[in-house]
Amino acid sequence: MGGGLGAFIGSVHRIAARLDDHYELVAGALSSDPVRAEASARDVRIAAERSYNDYRLMAQAEAARDDGIDVVVIVTPNHLHAPVATAFLEAGIHVICDKPLGISLAEGKQLAALARRRNKLFALTHTYTGYPMVRHAKAMVEAGEIGELRLVQVEYAQDWLAASIGRADTGAEHNWHNDPLRAGPGGTLSDVGTHAYHLAQFVSGQLPTQLLAELNTFVPGRPIDDHVQVMLRYANGARGTLWASQVATGCENTVRLRLYGSKAQLDFNQEKPTELWFTPQGGNPQRLSPGRVGSAAAAHATRMAAGHPEGYLEAFAQLYVDAAQHIIALDAGLPIPPAARWLPTVDDGVAGMAFIDAVLSSHQHDGRWTDLPPVS
Amino acid sequence: MGGGLGAFIGSVHRIAARLDDHYELVAGALSSDPVRAEASARDVRIAAERSYNDYRLMAQAEAARDDGIDVVVIVTPNHLHAPVATAFLEAGIHVICDKPLGISLAEGKQLAALARRRNKLFALTHTYTGYPMVRHAKAMVEAGEIGELRLVQVEYAQDWLAASIGRADTGAEHNWHNDPLRAGPGGTLSDVGTHAYHLAQFVSGQLPTQLLAELNTFVPGRPIDDHVQVMLRYANGARGTLWASQVATGCENTVRLRLYGSKAQLDFNQEKPTELWFTPQGGNPQRLSPGRVGSAAAAHATRMAAGHPEGYLEAFAQLYVDAAQHIIALDAGLPIPPAARWLPTVDDGVAGMAFIDAVLSSHQHDGRWTDLPPVS
Amino acid sequence: MGGGLGAFIGSVHRIAARLDDHYELVAGALSSDPVRAEASARDVRIAAERSYNDYRLMAQAEAARDDGIDVVVIVTPNHLHAPVATAFLEAGIHVICDKPLGISLAEGKQLAALARRRNKLFALTHTYTGYPMVRHAKAMVEAGEIGELRLVQVEYAQDWLAASIGRADTGAEHNWHNDPLRAGPGGTLSDVGTHAYHLAQFVSGQLPTQLLAELNTFVPGRPIDDHVQVMLRYANGARGTLWASQVATGCENTVRLRLYGSKAQLDFNQEKPTELWFTPQGGNPQRLSPGRVGSAAAAHATRMAAGHPEGYLEAFAQLYVDAAQHIIALDAGLPIPPAARWLPTVDDGVAGMAFIDAVLSSHQHDGRWTDLPPVS
Amino acid sequence: MGGGLGAFIGSVHRIAARLDDHYELVAGALSSDPVRAEASARDVRIAAERSYNDYRLMAQAEAARDDGIDVVVIVTPNHLHAPVATAFLEAGIHVICDKPLGISLAEGKQLAALARRRNKLFALTHTYTGYPMVRHAKAMVEAGEIGELRLVQVEYAQDWLAASIGRADTGAEHNWHNDPLRAGPGGTLSDVGTHAYHLAQFVSGQLPTQLLAELNTFVPGRPIDDHVQVMLRYANGARGTLWASQVATGCENTVRLRLYGSKAQLDFNQEKPTELWFTPQGGNPQRLSPGRVGSAAAAHATRMAAGHPEGYLEAFAQLYVDAAQHIIALDAGLPIPPAARWLPTVDDGVAGMAFIDAVLSSHQHDGRWTDLPPVS
Repeated sequence: MGGGLGAFIGSVHRIAARLDDHYELVAGALSSDPVRAEASARDVRIAAERSYNDYRLMAQAEAARDDGIDVVVIVTPNHLHAPVATAFLEAGIHVICDKPLGISLAEGKQLAALARRRNKLFALTHTYTGYPMVRHAKAMVEAGEIGELRLVQVEYAQDWLAASIGRADTGAEHNWHNDPLRAGPGGTLSDVGTHAYHLAQFVSGQLPTQLLAELNTFVPGRPIDDHVQVMLRYANGARGTLWASQVATGCENTVRLRLYGSKAQLDFNQEKPTELWFTPQGGNPQRLSPGRVGSAAAAHATRMAAGHPEGYLEAFAQLYVDAAQHIIALDAGLPIPPAARWLPTVDDGVAGMAFIDAVLSSHQHDGRWTDLPPVS
Repeated sequence: MGGGLGAFIGSVHRIAARLDDHYELVAGALSSDPVRAEASARDVRIAAERSYNDYRLMAQAEAARDDGIDVVVIVTPNHLHAPVATAFLEAGIHVICDKPLGISLAEGKQLAALARRRNKLFALTHTYTGYPMVRHAKAMVEAGEIGELRLVQVEYAQDWLAASIGRADTGAEHNWHNDPLRAGPGGTLSDVGTHAYHLAQFVSGQLPTQLLAELNTFVPGRPIDDHVQVMLRYANGARGTLWASQVATGCENTVRLRLYGSKAQLDFNQEKPTELWFTPQGGNPQRLSPGRVGSAAAAHATRMAAGHPEGYLEAFAQLYVDAAQHIIALDAGLPIPPAARWLPTVDDGVAGMAFIDAVLSSHQHDGRWTDLPPVS
Repeated sequence: MGGGLGAFIGSVHRIAARLDDHYELVAGALSSDPVRAEASARDVRIAAERSYNDYRLMAQAEAARDDGIDVVVIVTPNHLHAPVATAFLEAGIHVICDKPLGISLAEGKQLAALARRRNKLFALTHTYTGYPMVRHAKAMVEAGEIGELRLVQVEYAQDWLAASIGRADTGAEHNWHNDPLRAGPGGTLSDVGTHAYHLAQFVSGQLPTQLLAELNTFVPGRPIDDHVQVMLRYANGARGTLWASQVATGCENTVRLRLYGSKAQLDFNQEKPTELWFTPQGGNPQRLSPGRVGSAAAAHATRMAAGHPEGYLEAFAQLYVDAAQHIIALDAGLPIPPAARWLPTVDDGVAGMAFIDAVLSSHQHDGRWTDLPPVS
Repeated sequence: MGGGLGAFIGSVHRIAARLDDHYELVAGALSSDPVRAEASARDVRIAAERSYNDYRLMAQAEAARDDGIDVVVIVTPNHLHAPVATAFLEAGIHVICDKPLGISLAEGKQLAALARRRNKLFALTHTYTGYPMVRHAKAMVEAGEIGELRLVQVEYAQDWLAASIGRADTGAEHNWHNDPLRAGPGGTLSDVGTHAYHLAQFVSGQLPTQLLAELNTFVPGRPIDDHVQVMLRYANGARGTLWASQVATGCENTVRLRLYGSKAQLDFNQEKPTELWFTPQGGNPQRLSPGRVGSAAAAHATRMAAGHPEGYLEAFAQLYVDAAQHIIALDAGLPIPPAARWLPTVDDGVAGMAFIDAVLSSHQHDGRWTDLPPVS
């Protein structure tokens, strides 16, 4: 890339962005506190003149430079995603943003419209879609290898919020997740539920049309949900369940998707990301791996030789690789390269906000079946 | 045992009953067709004089003999469970009956009352409770090792009904499962959903107080459900989901129960019955096995040395072992030995019928939360 | 079977023999102590007149009866296998014998010759060959599905002798395993090493032509080996290793065989007996199960429906099923039915004794490559 | 680091070196062909003036610069390791070198002496030691958690050389592995056998004192071994086997180490690098993960939160992190920080060369037990 990479960057984003050589960190607004911003910038070797403590200033200043950044990475609390992204998109700078998209469906739709109008990339880092075996699973579904979709079982289970308040929740860096003003109207729903929802959509190629849901808060004193159960209905008659929990005792970070089609089953768990289980109807399970499936989809997201496992960081980096290809294509007025077409974007974020809305609505009506709006 | 073992017996029941030396097959009404009944009896070496083609005759004749049977085993289609069991209970003969209990909650309650009145055993063969690691899991829950129950995830998934009608459903021996008159008002719900429901109850020690459900039929032409999704609410605030499917492509016979308590998680899958996974909150998973846990509960249900796997047949046999201890105690007017106390009985069957009723009711009201009656 | 089943029977043998309805226990010499013999006989319902305290008397008496036993089961310490088997074979009675065959290669050869001369069955209970997935693996190798054999990795690992003498070895029932006079010249080598050796031969269809070995005794005070390491050479150039240990800390009863051919790999572990892993060269592993492979070989050794796991007891029972078919055929002068042809017999026992001899010889020569005699 | 990172760098090394921010690539001799060297340099953004086509020139030129490189990375064929490393060590530049150390024990010893004399780091990239669970395993052994070591089972199995010559071996980049002049006297033995040998030593903390070995070549036409079997004896009486194969049909890149001590067993397989299995004698297996063990050793080698898997690249990067700490300490005349003390160095490389020698010697004497020289 000619230019560089922008700001608001967390450690994982920073390593991931750099992994495959497409990004360089040259500017940033790492804090709204000037002292802290400057120290953080020094730590990651951003020149003092390009360290900002106000994202609006940064957007304007960088847009004005000949060597200004091409793309900004947004890793603020959720409530700032929309204002920050708006500032940079308005300044003509591409955006890579942490999930969820924001704190309301309305602002999500505005962002989508803005990105489209400015013809800029708005990538959303639904990391789990960057794994080679998730890519391969999607390719198998597209190729018809599971037949018609019948059942979706998706779950995202952690236990790090299972302990009582006062022990697990004291970490300052996580505090905003418990604050509806900054996290938005969902807790676990928004934080990891949207990941599960997107993963199911990504691999199956389908969004549900109706859902029914219940939120719960198991740990006394927590002001927001820590547990979500959802039933899903799809247009073709398929059914599903989504379960997201941060009080799932004993779970580190299980993100598991099972799809059952008329012809075969697929099963993926991100804690064993080099494995995709494929079982034909009535047949024996096969454990597929990136080094053995030989698909373009998996190869595109693989760096290492067979049997040399890649992990979460590499999945994250894959989104950055794809985003780079989007940016290059958009800037050149060329079509997006097919290999990069699966990058999650602002439209996926809008679907996620609609999901949050529908779950909240169903929950408020004691689990009533609730329509999901059609996605354009 | 002084007497013997009765009739209506399928091959698995027969092997299981005999495995541990407590039963002898001496009489039977193996068919209502006299010719077939006689041939079947000869095949399993029942004397001609004790082969019957009418269960009422058999109950009366055996009750009248000095060496009459002690216990009858009922493996008819569901609609006959209640009349047959009634005949034998009335004749003073203990009953071991296949699940589900019958075809209505009302007849289930009558059977429970009758068994109680006659002081006879009515055992229900929820086989999966006979596995040593299921017994051990129950013992761990009772001992408080998972803390307070928060989440239940139970699933029963098969794929043998996933193919289209006309291929998988032609087997004459399974036809009655698709006939509501003989199978009762549920398909998959009744056939395997009740197994899942009971397993969750058995290990957790709790029945839900409310549920919400949806039934589906995925294979065109099938007159009954082949897929069930349920959400569960428990009195203590715990939540759960139950999923039963016979169209779960690629699944042989997955019966998996996960319990998440405030202190630990338990995970069992009957396809790997020698493994019980125990994970403390925030800790590392441990794979427990019958040969290593050293509990009385597991030892009671184990025949072999460590590392010599036992399976489904032995789990089934365990119910027969426990039933024998019940019968001996009841006949002698003694208390049930503690080791045998976990045998599923008619009360579990009544709970299962109430579950079927509630699921049907919720489904008919588009997934409304529905109360489950308290169990006496 | 017309007649019945004989004596010296342990609990596992007794359950296994009866599982599939081909045997009836009618006589026995359960102890050389008359009081104990009589009590044991009563316990397993052998009539007093057919309970013996001398195996020679029993062989003669049963041979003289019209309803005398057809087959005797030998579960004595190893040093008695040959004299007992000789007495019954001489009396015209078929033999089912625990492994290893005996305590010397010479007596093994005599037994083989005797059994052949008398045209009687001499079955050897190498139990692990009774598993359906072991049968299926053998069928795959025979069908050429792994190509030419290149590598054999077989291991048998337990930890029950890993603790110091005085704790694990006090059990009276195991004492003779530590006594070379009764156990023969090998400890772990003889007790479980022969199982591993036979399993490799059974599935691969090949016996090695040379081996190199080292025995060890890790627990101070043990008079015999508790650990065996062997390298193997095969006539076709294939290579292998065999490892048997009863001090393999943390292992319950791992019996694992891996075969690598020019076309594919097979991997079986008896602790998960329903799984056989098949991996084509350069391809993805497939987890085969009895309910899914659909082979005659697996079906022959399977009782239950798909996904209803069978275990060690059923594998053991399978040998009894096959033995019954041998006996019926031999008595009728008919050929052995193809389905039963894989029963381990006295010839496998002779190969096992040759293996013991060669390991001891190699060990005594500090690991020198040692020829194995060709098997007729 | 003040200076920079040197040359001869492959893609994996380059990504790994940069992952944690301690290295910058500023110079290189990427080929002895000037045109290719320049093109490669441009591709990785090395300035033309610091791209060399002769490693001697590079060593001298960089040593002469104020901003010369601190450390060079050697990824040439094996026969060049020693001359290149010598040139840079002589020039006072630290060395990070691919395994094996070289092509003879003699040159290995000279390199070790030279590095010591010049007080420079000579790191050897035995990558598998960089995994957090391998580090944790080593820490457990050091803490006495497995008791006294009894058994070592280590294996390295791949199948990429299992196909016939002419198919798998055509890749130009691998050709030198089959050429004894460039690869040294071992094929699989040297390429992956040394990895296995080092991993066993790393975790167990022990080198064997004797070995016995056999090399094989399974694929016709291959001029070098593709299969190694070794038995090991340790000073304390422990025993072991090492198996390395590149014709292990169906294996991607299995690197598995099992240690059995008097108290517990450890089991690690790099294809599932986030799992370390720990089983106490007579107890239940525990699956340990980086996010849960909470050890300093694992934490030191972990970047991500619990349940976010890291892989081979991160293990590789860990060696670079540790090497950076060595270099900083050596340059400052300070002691090596304890956390970095486990970095494999030239002494490990010498042990690996001694292993190769001993295996070749034993093989040439038909598997004779052969002494390994004591390591200083």
